[in-house]
Amino acid sequence: SMQTSGSNPCSCPSFKLREVASMYFTMIAVFLVILVVALQGSAPRGSDFPYKVPLDPQGLLELSWNVSYPEQAVNFQLLIRDLQFGLLFGMSDRGEFENADLAVLWSDGHNSYFGDAWSDSRGQLHMDSQQDYQLLAARRAPEGLYLLFRRPFSTCDPKDYLIEDGTVHLIYGILEKPVHSLQAINISAIHGGLQRVQLLKPNITIPELPRDMKTMEITAPNVVIPSQETTYWCYMAELPEDFSKHHIIMYEPVVTAGNEALVHHMEVFQCAAEFDSFPHYNGPCDSKMKPERLNYCRHVLAAWAMGAQAFYYPEEAGLAFGGPGSSRYLRLEIHYHNPLVIKGRRDSSGIRLYYTATLRRHDAGIMELGLVYTPVMAIPPGEDSFVLTGYCTDKCTQLALPAAGIRIFASQLHTHLAGRKVVTVLARDGRERQVVNSDGHYSPHFQEIRMLKEVVAVFPGDELITTCTYNTEERSRATVGGFGILEEMCVNYVHYYPQTQLELCKSAVDPGYLHRYFNLVNRFNDDEVCMCPQVSVPQQFFSIPWNTFNRDVLKSLYGFAPISMHCNKSSAVRFPVRMASLPKKLPAVGK
Amino acid sequence: SMQTSGSNPCSCPSFKLREVASMYFTMIAVFLVILVVALQGSAPRGSDFPYKVPLDPQGLLELSWNVSYPEQAVNFQLLIRDLQFGLLFGMSDRGEFENADLAVLWSDGHNSYFGDAWSDSRGQLHMDSQQDYQLLAARRAPEGLYLLFRRPFSTCDPKDYLIEDGTVHLIYGILEKPVHSLQAINISAIHGGLQRVQLLKPNITIPELPRDMKTMEITAPNVVIPSQETTYWCYMAELPEDFSKHHIIMYEPVVTAGNEALVHHMEVFQCAAEFDSFPHYNGPCDSKMKPERLNYCRHVLAAWAMGAQAFYYPEEAGLAFGGPGSSRYLRLEIHYHNPLVIKGRRDSSGIRLYYTATLRRHDAGIMELGLVYTPVMAIPPGEDSFVLTGYCTDKCTQLALPAAGIRIFASQLHTHLAGRKVVTVLARDGRERQVVNSDGHYSPHFQEIRMLKEVVAVFPGDELITTCTYNTEERSRATVGGFGILEEMCVNYVHYYPQTQLELCKSAVDPGYLHRYFNLVNRFNDDEVCMCPQVSVPQQFFSIPWNTFNRDVLKSLYGFAPISMHCNKSSAVRFPVRMASLPKKLPAVGK
Repeated sequence: SMQTSGSNPCSCPSFKLREVASMYFTMIAVFLVILVVALQGSAPRGSDFPYKVPLDPQGLLELSWNVSYPEQAVNFQLLIRDLQFGLLFGMSDRGEFENADLAVLWSDGHNSYFGDAWSDSRGQLHMDSQQDYQLLAARRAPEGLYLLFRRPFSTCDPKDYLIEDGTVHLIYGILEKPVHSLQAINISAIHGGLQRVQLLKPNITIPELPRDMKTMEITAPNVVIPSQETTYWCYMAELPEDFSKHHIIMYEPVVTAGNEALVHHMEVFQCAAEFDSFPHYNGPCDSKMKPERLNYCRHVLAAWAMGAQAFYYPEEAGLAFGGPGSSRYLRLEIHYHNPLVIKGRRDSSGIRLYYTATLRRHDAGIMELGLVYTPVMAIPPGEDSFVLTGYCTDKCTQLALPAAGIRIFASQLHTHLAGRKVVTVLARDGRERQVVNSDGHYSPHFQEIRMLKEVVAVFPGDELITTCTYNTEERSRATVGGFGILEEMCVNYVHYYPQTQLELCKSAVDPGYLHRYFNLVNRFNDDEVCMCPQVSVPQQFFSIPWNTFNRDVLKSLYGFAPISMHCNKSSAVRFPVRMASLPKKLPAVGK
Repeated sequence: SMQTSGSNPCSCPSFKLREVASMYFTMIAVFLVILVVALQGSAPRGSDFPYKVPLDPQGLLELSWNVSYPEQAVNFQLLIRDLQFGLLFGMSDRGEFENADLAVLWSDGHNSYFGDAWSDSRGQLHMDSQQDYQLLAARRAPEGLYLLFRRPFSTCDPKDYLIEDGTVHLIYGILEKPVHSLQAINISAIHGGLQRVQLLKPNITIPELPRDMKTMEITAPNVVIPSQETTYWCYMAELPEDFSKHHIIMYEPVVTAGNEALVHHMEVFQCAAEFDSFPHYNGPCDSKMKPERLNYCRHVLAAWAMGAQAFYYPEEAGLAFGGPGSSRYLRLEIHYHNPLVIKGRRDSSGIRLYYTATLRRHDAGIMELGLVYTPVMAIPPGEDSFVLTGYCTDKCTQLALPAAGIRIFASQLHTHLAGRKVVTVLARDGRERQVVNSDGHYSPHFQEIRMLKEVVAVFPGDELITTCTYNTEERSRATVGGFGILEEMCVNYVHYYPQTQLELCKSAVDPGYLHRYFNLVNRFNDDEVCMCPQVSVPQQFFSIPWNTFNRDVLKSLYGFAPISMHCNKSSAVRFPVRMASLPKKLPAVGK
């Protein structure tokens, strides 16, 4: 409970709410100070706030929320289990404490205050001229203090964060001493952290579930969570023998009570059908003891990350598993995030699959969009936002998609460590029509499968254009495309139905044009970059003397040169589409 | 007066004002309809609305306004001399009727309504969800109906125009028939026009004027305005013999009553001192009868454009004229804009100079910033916003400015027909510090000398960076720099004191690097562009096969290549600064 330094240290704190009367046709905000007494009351029902994440590793701060699309606002419920002299909660571009948009609860030891504030580039707090975090209630309960507040997606305050689809970096800070004013707080100096969530969860109608539905739990067998910050735990599970083809129609997380703040994300992979059997294993994924063969268990069946709820397939489709041509072996991978290095904690978390033998109309499939894994797509060093684009062209969809089209209902974005933004758009007849999925605050550390707000229909002749933005400010040499952790990818795994043979629809720049680029840079800079054909593309990129001209011309090349198209069937046989000239610059969606 | 189609056609119209109660913390606007009776009253005093322009060529619509910087709002007074069934007034990027932000007064024949609306890309009107034009009053007077309304500079409505410094393109339209709803109006189909003004006039403290101040009127001698849309009229005036050195400390327009809508802008130029005498002349500037020698009268003494008020020099400075080394001959140039081709109108407009023999502390000077007039700076065809930048470098200011610096107090931006935006910023120690003058809606048809909101101090070592944005969408070949009307310039004439020897501080790209560019484009495109040295730079630009790559690489070149600096004394002798490497990209002002 909140401590006060007055004569009656056990009394309930009083709350002053600062609210803003938004003046009619003027920019001058008038503050009204309204006194509200904290109510002793029961905690709000969980169903009011369906989404929940712990903010700190100990779970002392627990955030629940709901989204009102008609009102374009998010309602937050923050449970503070051990309130001291206040709390900061807010959002910033990538989780920084500087230039953040904050709701602040603070106490001077006598009274408590709530306000909408922002932190400057030095972390110093300032009151917003317009108060957009609206305090709705403050309730005391045995487990702690509940703060209920509300925030529109978009405010007109330039100091405010714009809540958009995709990842939101939430930050929190704990005030351990009384503060006499908001201006006295410097967020950089206080204890706090960050948590990534998808705040704007889509409003999905849950499809009716069949009567014959069964469940299967793929869970860790009471493992001791290692006392280290990061562990990827691998556990092999097995389907029953003669398990016929079923459809997974839903799955949900099973998180051991008390470990909510430790279980960061979990995935269930199916192994390759080429092998008759896989060894049992239960241990860290990076252990030398892990059998090699487990690397052949990479086909995603289910994926969950903190803050996500149950995943429902659309009623026309299910994800096939079991039956001939499908491996009986599954690999569960759990990412434990244990920054406080808690020792001896046991965990049996995992994923519960809901499946049916009554197959739905369509098998669901996963298609890979974006860039081919090739070094010809590279990012110069020292870039704060370099953009690469991969195309799934009209020619490829023309050949590979059924006349009735496919329906994309979910998407998982993927890059390596330099990725900062990812977006896929659908274009038809040379015009952008629809955003398939977009994350302007993408983090490679938070890769969820996300249900789309609306199912996207893709027809033969449509184009799917995936654009990734990278930050290489900390790097001293070029970052080329590839599989390595310091190489880059630009991928959107789209979940769709009905399944087709097209498993991969990606592009890269034409290598001949890249050769012309190396040539040009060489001549323009009077440099002796080795142009010998035996030198690899990465080596050529590494030898470029980077400057704004060479950087800009590489950008121009990627925007101009023809592309090489990869339009592959599941069997790794390519559809006969290879070269394509680059699609023209398209007018943006909604213009 | 407004006509109504009811039983009493002569009654005064009633006005319904639509106002918005901006809802507390929601995006939903609730419309309150308030009935206000139009008052018979006297016209507001002119001093309340110090700035005035006619909107239409007949002057039936007259706009006056004032600016409240504390409230960040403009108060408008619109006099409608012959109201029919309503009026549209608003603003758009460059004076288009589509995508415009509009205040609309309309009558259905019974009642009149006022609202804030916007026009879509087809000219169709829609009511804004947020009402930001606030009607303050509607008054009947013998001369017509006065509408008083107010608009904040910036609203949060994305459909609204942002009122900024520099040119604002005002548009108007006249409703000649009753309309039953705002949605029934398509602005593209109605009679209207555009007028350019600087809405956000700076709030200048008028300096005290000396007792010995005299006035001199340089006015047209009762000329008959030609019955054609555009006339530039030239009239030669002469200072008295033995007119000693004086300081012009103020000037103001003298516009013949009734011709307010015809006199578009006026300038007084001083002739070159090299010639002992100049012929008399009174006629169109483009006449074959105009003596050649008048082309040597180009030194600006005073300039006025529609909507501008008196121009005051700062109290420390005056513009020198008269005395030895200064020509006695002046040329008055008046731009008559007569789109209705009115015949036989007589005019004696001109400029009244206020001057004093008691010289002020400093002579004022004019310095030219931006780009050298050279074809090496070119704009590819088909560009909607191509940017060129000219530098007045630290090295030049270091050599040419006095240790105490100079003070820039006014600025006149200049480009030819493709110019769309111009901005000059001051940088110090590699960081942008201050915007000297900025016009995001610049028009080559509206080139005023504008007083700066704040005087800008420039010290040795400072840089002045002038950036122009061009539109060449309608052109099929490259636009090169030069003097021709279809060539381009990027210039900011800054008015400052104390006068120095530095008359010109401009740059262009290093010609050697441009040669490398032609070479590169040639090789990359496998084209046979003639690289022979006898081919001129314009010819080489005209022969480039323009595509996005060649365009982007030209941009990159201009951003990367070293510059050639022109740092010239009045005597056309250059200060010894020639080559400079390009200043690094600077962080923007206020970040």
